[in-house]
Amino acid sequence: MFDSGVGGLTVVRAIRSVLPGEDIVYLGDTARVPYGSKSPRTVERYSLACQQFLLDRGVKLVLIACNTASANALPALVAASPVPVIGAVEPGATSALAATRNGHIGVIGTLGTVRSGAYAKAIAARAPEVQLVALACPLLVPLAEEGWTDDADEIATAVARRYLAQLFARDPLIDTLVLGCTHYPLLRGVLERVASELANRPVAVVDSATAMANAARDALRSAGAPDLARRAAGRLDCFATDATRLDELAPRFLGEARTAMTGFELVDL
Amino acid sequence: MFDSGVGGLTVVRAIRSVLPGEDIVYLGDTARVPYGSKSPRTVERYSLACQQFLLDRGVKLVLIACNTASANALPALVAASPVPVIGAVEPGATSALAATRNGHIGVIGTLGTVRSGAYAKAIAARAPEVQLVALACPLLVPLAEEGWTDDADEIATAVARRYLAQLFARDPLIDTLVLGCTHYPLLRGVLERVASELANRPVAVVDSATAMANAARDALRSAGAPDLARRAAGRLDCFATDATRLDELAPRFLGEARTAMTGFELVDL
Repeated sequence: MFDSGVGGLTVVRAIRSVLPGEDIVYLGDTARVPYGSKSPRTVERYSLACQQFLLDRGVKLVLIACNTASANALPALVAASPVPVIGAVEPGATSALAATRNGHIGVIGTLGTVRSGAYAKAIAARAPEVQLVALACPLLVPLAEEGWTDDADEIATAVARRYLAQLFARDPLIDTLVLGCTHYPLLRGVLERVASELANRPVAVVDSATAMANAARDALRSAGAPDLARRAAGRLDCFATDATRLDELAPRFLGEARTAMTGFELVDL
Repeated sequence: MFDSGVGGLTVVRAIRSVLPGEDIVYLGDTARVPYGSKSPRTVERYSLACQQFLLDRGVKLVLIACNTASANALPALVAASPVPVIGAVEPGATSALAATRNGHIGVIGTLGTVRSGAYAKAIAARAPEVQLVALACPLLVPLAEEGWTDDADEIATAVARRYLAQLFARDPLIDTLVLGCTHYPLLRGVLERVASELANRPVAVVDSATAMANAARDALRSAGAPDLARRAAGRLDCFATDATRLDELAPRFLGEARTAMTGFELVDL
């Protein structure tokens, strides 16, 4: 799997939980992070280079552990890959449809993800009656990376409130909030609390990491890959295009899966 | 001049004021922005590509309108350039020394600028008795780009207070604060107010843009370049490696110089 940086490690955590026996090759394009503020053309160009790096290492499945890359580059990545490619948007949309009770869904993500309209298209294809509003929240990624993510953090709360108030102003009936960026699970507590306060009722929060892991399991089964469920824990090989802050940031995103990591090897793309 | 993105346009504004007759070629490496969180090796590699683009266009002087690139790549850029190269750090350090009355200076900037120790070295070479503390403030760039920069903004104020409190805890006597990043002038009002509140007395705030413009004028005079002071306003040709948000962001940073801009031409590096 690849991501623009370290956020995709939340997907590693989910995969380790659902498919513990699989070997994982993770590439973070940390020299060119973030993708979220960049144009579709640039995101596609960088994503293709990331995927080629993984294909050159003989992977049997590619996971796009980055919503921005999924939203902007999935068709190009599928066309260029001889193995199945799974993005973040389709599984996230499926989870959101399973969670909503009234058909009002909110999505937050990067500028690139929101501008792509990918979640709206994925939802509309499955459930055209569902109403979806999406909002770009550029400050949430640096907040997560700075580690200002405690549920009671004054700044995280104020930032979440400013963004989510805009979202609920556009649809006060939202009952399900999609975290459309792999960084956002670190702010899940704050976002869930603020969303529920603004809605005056509990709001379901879904992230795409677990949904992606389930989709990966299904894809491997369909492809007839051997079931490694009873194998000892697989390898986790991590690569990055720039070293800065990796040792500080990676454990925050990996959670309990951090014990599997032996560090990042640097590569040029 | 080049910058990792649009922040360097604050330097364009200063140059237009000091050297209005000069033609400016500006390159923002917006496909790979930000440089501030990346390693010296990556910053040097990208900076050399930016400079070469400018040299290929026949410039007579290179301005590094990015503190991170100045702090990490100046020697490599000077070695690779047949024309003079001016960074942000030396002029900023000179301005800070002129402003301080008690010899206690604080510097805020990106992680890459702070880790380089470039301001500390520049100050120590000129005034070894001066005490300098430096702090990385990763949230200030996205705050400036989001436009949450009003003097009374609740979030900008809380973020500035959290960072500057750390700075003043390390040296309560700071009387001069260097904005060591070309994005930060947009937050100047908030930073000046919060710093003065924390210090309980006025704190001088200096940014390197004006100092760089003066250094550029001196360098051109030393090189015997013709004085264009009475020429009509020069051209401003802007290039970028990615288009996203340029039209939204550029005017914020250019100020009154925005009238000279005709848009960005996209280039691949």
